[in-house]
Amino acid sequence: MENFELSCPIQKSNFDRVLLAHGSGGTLSHNLVKDIFLPYFGNNYLNVLHDGAILNNSNKKLAFTTDSYVVNPLFFPGGNIGDLAINGTVNDLAMCGALPKYISCGFIIEEGFLINNLIEIIKNMKIAADKAGVKIVTGDTKVVENGKGDGIFINTSGIGFIDEGINISANNCKPGDVILINGFIAEHGMAIMSVRNGFEFESPIISDTAALNGLVADMLNVSKNIHVLRDPTRGGIASTLNELAESSNVGILIDENTIPISDTVKAACEILGFDPLYVANEGKLIAFLAPEEAEKVLGVMKTHPLGIHSRIIGEVVCENQGMVIMKTEIGSSRIVDMLTGEQLPRIC
Amino acid sequence: MENFELSCPIQKSNFDRVLLAHGSGGTLSHNLVKDIFLPYFGNNYLNVLHDGAILNNSNKKLAFTTDSYVVNPLFFPGGNIGDLAINGTVNDLAMCGALPKYISCGFIIEEGFLINNLIEIIKNMKIAADKAGVKIVTGDTKVVENGKGDGIFINTSGIGFIDEGINISANNCKPGDVILINGFIAEHGMAIMSVRNGFEFESPIISDTAALNGLVADMLNVSKNIHVLRDPTRGGIASTLNELAESSNVGILIDENTIPISDTVKAACEILGFDPLYVANEGKLIAFLAPEEAEKVLGVMKTHPLGIHSRIIGEVVCENQGMVIMKTEIGSSRIVDMLTGEQLPRIC
Repeated sequence: MENFELSCPIQKSNFDRVLLAHGSGGTLSHNLVKDIFLPYFGNNYLNVLHDGAILNNSNKKLAFTTDSYVVNPLFFPGGNIGDLAINGTVNDLAMCGALPKYISCGFIIEEGFLINNLIEIIKNMKIAADKAGVKIVTGDTKVVENGKGDGIFINTSGIGFIDEGINISANNCKPGDVILINGFIAEHGMAIMSVRNGFEFESPIISDTAALNGLVADMLNVSKNIHVLRDPTRGGIASTLNELAESSNVGILIDENTIPISDTVKAACEILGFDPLYVANEGKLIAFLAPEEAEKVLGVMKTHPLGIHSRIIGEVVCENQGMVIMKTEIGSSRIVDMLTGEQLPRIC
Repeated sequence: MENFELSCPIQKSNFDRVLLAHGSGGTLSHNLVKDIFLPYFGNNYLNVLHDGAILNNSNKKLAFTTDSYVVNPLFFPGGNIGDLAINGTVNDLAMCGALPKYISCGFIIEEGFLINNLIEIIKNMKIAADKAGVKIVTGDTKVVENGKGDGIFINTSGIGFIDEGINISANNCKPGDVILINGFIAEHGMAIMSVRNGFEFESPIISDTAALNGLVADMLNVSKNIHVLRDPTRGGIASTLNELAESSNVGILIDENTIPISDTVKAACEILGFDPLYVANEGKLIAFLAPEEAEKVLGVMKTHPLGIHSRIIGEVVCENQGMVIMKTEIGSSRIVDMLTGEQLPRIC
């Protein structure tokens, strides 16, 4: 695998902290972009420093997505807001069946934010973008007064292109479909919650943040006939499956025994009182496809570094339309509702 | 002109204020989107409620842009953060010479924000999008704790398509080019500052926020040979012209007598101590083009509602590379520097 450590570009900011004037549109804004953003992000598209990027197009269908990231803390085991913001948006494009290509970044920075932390975040965005094979092509920076933000919020939007013959959509779940997942659930959410709660486990819980476009490409390579792809982020697999049951108007049946979860995460969920089905993932995908396609897709998933623990966790049924039912470990059945209140604020 | 008042879609939110749980990814998030966003924004692309929109493509070059809006106050004479967020991003695309087409919205809302204010903002975004002829196709909502944001921040990203033969770029200013502007400067910034300072003028200063894509289309219709288009927002025309002088490595000469500014704005600038050259505009563009093209472009601009007061304000010269020089009202010359510090925080 390629080594994605970055050699350190020249950093010549004369400030330790972000000032309101860094958002003025004048010299300091200009310098922030030239001294801190461009050394890491610079490419032929971005270097023009126009207000928009002019991009090559193909005649394929376009996928377009946006996400704002407000995760707290900004740095956590396994990642930080920077790589999370790249991976999350890359994943949203991959879940459309698209090849992610171009990314925009919008920063809202609180006055007083440490320049060194900003550099660390930007460095990690660049590493994540390179790893995922996407280009950061346009951006914007705003600064708000101390006390009117919370360190840094990042919006990333993305564009990708969809190959012909691919038709992935949230209302495409079909009765009979099997449901695959690519590994252990609830790792991102519990990594964040462990830090927030100051818990130390024997082995620390590491966020699963990762770009899934490579895995998806491998899957689509063996079967163009995937019906639905979705990354179960905020609200966990329970919320994602409920949304899909509703939008496809089908029932979803999952089997608790088959849902992959590590012992450490299970223990942390018990201690902190969380149901892992509702805890966020940032490097997981759920795929729906016809049973006859399942074996070959599962096979190729297991050979990918991000899919070693892939397995079938359930199926789509005709009954119980709009609902998710789980066969529990002890053999009974229960309804898995959508999350009503707030379980984990600012998890991404 | 078409009437862009919206009939009021059904609003059935059971809450007066935004709760943290509205950002959870669960039922409340779901309801916020279904009850408040979709009734206004709903269209074939957005209704799918996938994490990304799948869009029709053309084989033209793509323009892609992003901007976060943190304006304070959220509502001001002539507009609010909602239409500003649509118009600003539409304008960034238009300044690439693109036909703006698709818009994404990312909301970062502070816990406790009034649902009625959210609805008002969303309504105005929809009106502005319809007026500009763009579709809101994908979105995201995050909620941060009370005291960790400031009401609402909005990111909009946009995609447009560029017709063949158009080659507009920030490093395209050529010696001999004339510089056009479409009307009075400094209106947006002074509208905001008047509200913030509690000043009342005889006639209130109204923000010029407007989508410029129609005006740009008319201009490109009579001349594909426009070298540079730029909207002088944060930092005003002084900062924009300085950036262009630097990126095109030319000198820019402007004539103070020709710069359009209303008496009210001029008076407000004097009272509040601002130089109007540095004050933000949100419905103005600066165009650079060969002198032989100027007359027909100026002619068509003057016939557009947003260009009635268009005029020539300067020219590009070989000497003083990277600098902006202004011939003053009294006939002397002075250097117009880039803004160094912060003049007007959170103007957009």
